Amino acid sequence: MRLAGMRFEGDVVVAAVRSEGLRPLARVTDFWADPHGLVTDEFVASRPVVPRHGVEFVPPVRPDARILCVGLNYADHVAEGPFSVPDHPTIFGRWTPSLAVTDQHVAVPVDENGLDWEAELLAVVGSRLSVATVDEAKAGVFAYACFNDITARRAQKLTTQWTIGKNVDGSGAMSELVTVDEAPDPATGLRITARVNGEVTQDASTDQMIFRVSDLLAFLSRSFELRPGDLVATGTPSGVGYARTPAWLLQAGDSVEVAIEGIGSVRSHIVATSASSAGAAVAGVPAGR
Amino acid sequence: MRLAGMRFEGDVVVAAVRSEGLRPLARVTDFWADPHGLVTDEFVASRPVVPRHGVEFVPPVRPDARILCVGLNYADHVAEGPFSVPDHPTIFGRWTPSLAVTDQHVAVPVDENGLDWEAELLAVVGSRLSVATVDEAKAGVFAYACFNDITARRAQKLTTQWTIGKNVDGSGAMSELVTVDEAPDPATGLRITARVNGEVTQDASTDQMIFRVSDLLAFLSRSFELRPGDLVATGTPSGVGYARTPAWLLQAGDSVEVAIEGIGSVRSHIVATSASSAGAAVAGVPAGR
Repeated sequence: MRLAGMRFEGDVVVAAVRSEGLRPLARVTDFWADPHGLVTDEFVASRPVVPRHGVEFVPPVRPDARILCVGLNYADHVAEGPFSVPDHPTIFGRWTPSLAVTDQHVAVPVDENGLDWEAELLAVVGSRLSVATVDEAKAGVFAYACFNDITARRAQKLTTQWTIGKNVDGSGAMSELVTVDEAPDPATGLRITARVNGEVTQDASTDQMIFRVSDLLAFLSRSFELRPGDLVATGTPSGVGYARTPAWLLQAGDSVEVAIEGIGSVRSHIVATSASSAGAAVAGVPAGR
Repeated sequence: MRLAGMRFEGDVVVAAVRSEGLRPLARVTDFWADPHGLVTDEFVASRPVVPRHGVEFVPPVRPDARILCVGLNYADHVAEGPFSVPDHPTIFGRWTPSLAVTDQHVAVPVDENGLDWEAELLAVVGSRLSVATVDEAKAGVFAYACFNDITARRAQKLTTQWTIGKNVDGSGAMSELVTVDEAPDPATGLRITARVNGEVTQDASTDQMIFRVSDLLAFLSRSFELRPGDLVATGTPSGVGYARTPAWLLQAGDSVEVAIEGIGSVRSHIVATSASSAGAAVAGVPAGR
């Protein structure tokens, strides 16, 4: 099943994406309390149909979801760092106000020369996972999506900690979710690409990950309990902009698209600093004051 | 005004803490949409009184609040690292599911030899701040609280990124908030202490910070827009456990308390891994399944 977030009757809801339109299933916090129980064909068929035209889409994400991002998870990207292949997953975090859906704007922060792209597979947790085995972790994956971990490189590298460069408003662009029963298995190798204004800049396969999705979830579940709706951005392959000679960063007017075979795609539009950011439409965030 | 979070009529609300009891003011997301408008004496007096006894306290925090934590912000703690004094604030993140209020339990994760304490001043943002000047940032501070940035050192230092060691469920213990009109100014020097089972382990003054609260908020607002309810944990002084010889980490049965002169205090109780974590009571998180 394909799932999207939308505003509906004053709430942020998770909706099934169907040929006839959107089928709103539940408010986002209610949905993630029991995601498996709400994606049955019977339940979906019982829900109203909302025409796609005019819908305000938002990330289908719990406001307090953890967005656990993995650095250095494709060997060729590790090499372009240059870094060494790590013994453990390197984890940094995003907060939900940094998320966006497709075709939203992201503004270049004032101190940056541009923004960088990072095509990633996003895994969505569907169960509570605490000290999980790899098998339990595998069974705990609910859905996949495409993710662009758009990065402010200057801020990322200002100190040892990458966090502020990874939380620009609207910089974490995610596609619709595809539940695992309808998605191909990333471990079998899915083509993952980034395109800047149509030109391919990253082109790899998800079977090149150093730590697989189930390894990552099992690892994380030893430090805290993963919850349904938590997101794991599984790292990017080589081809990012800052590591090129000369460096290539996204500027106002550029568009960037991440696509993964069998999953979907997500596109972001870069705008100048003065434009309003796209992050305001995220679940649970009050509208601008 | 002193503010706490509590469960009230099925919601998580922010309440004024008064001698006569709690005065629930608004649901947590509504409160942070307009915090200044809701802490007037007139409005508080119009609200019902709930006796303190039997109240379930929770962090008075937006589910999607950013918890921006500053590493290396007291020179003596930088030296015990040993690190160098940084040119810029070193920022890592916590998610709200890691927060707790006073007298909650925090479990030692399975792979850790114990947990470490970090006494900190917590600053709470009260306005939208984007590319703010230092003066604007100073005016954008709404309240202060005591914070214990309880840390899983092994996980923190497993890779270059500290995030997973800083997000143990229930490990971010915060006191009641004190609005700035009633709080002493941290820049004037407030005694900040940590005590483990009553023994003083950290003892410093908030005027020893390398980057002051308004500097931190102005800095952060250049990468993304700060929002009312975002939290900034301003770093810890020397005296943490792992840097001692021999190292001293919190074990099951230990209690740890952070206190700041004129602000308050917050206490946490360490339990073994098998105990349920305290993090489940955070705003917006569905109860256990």
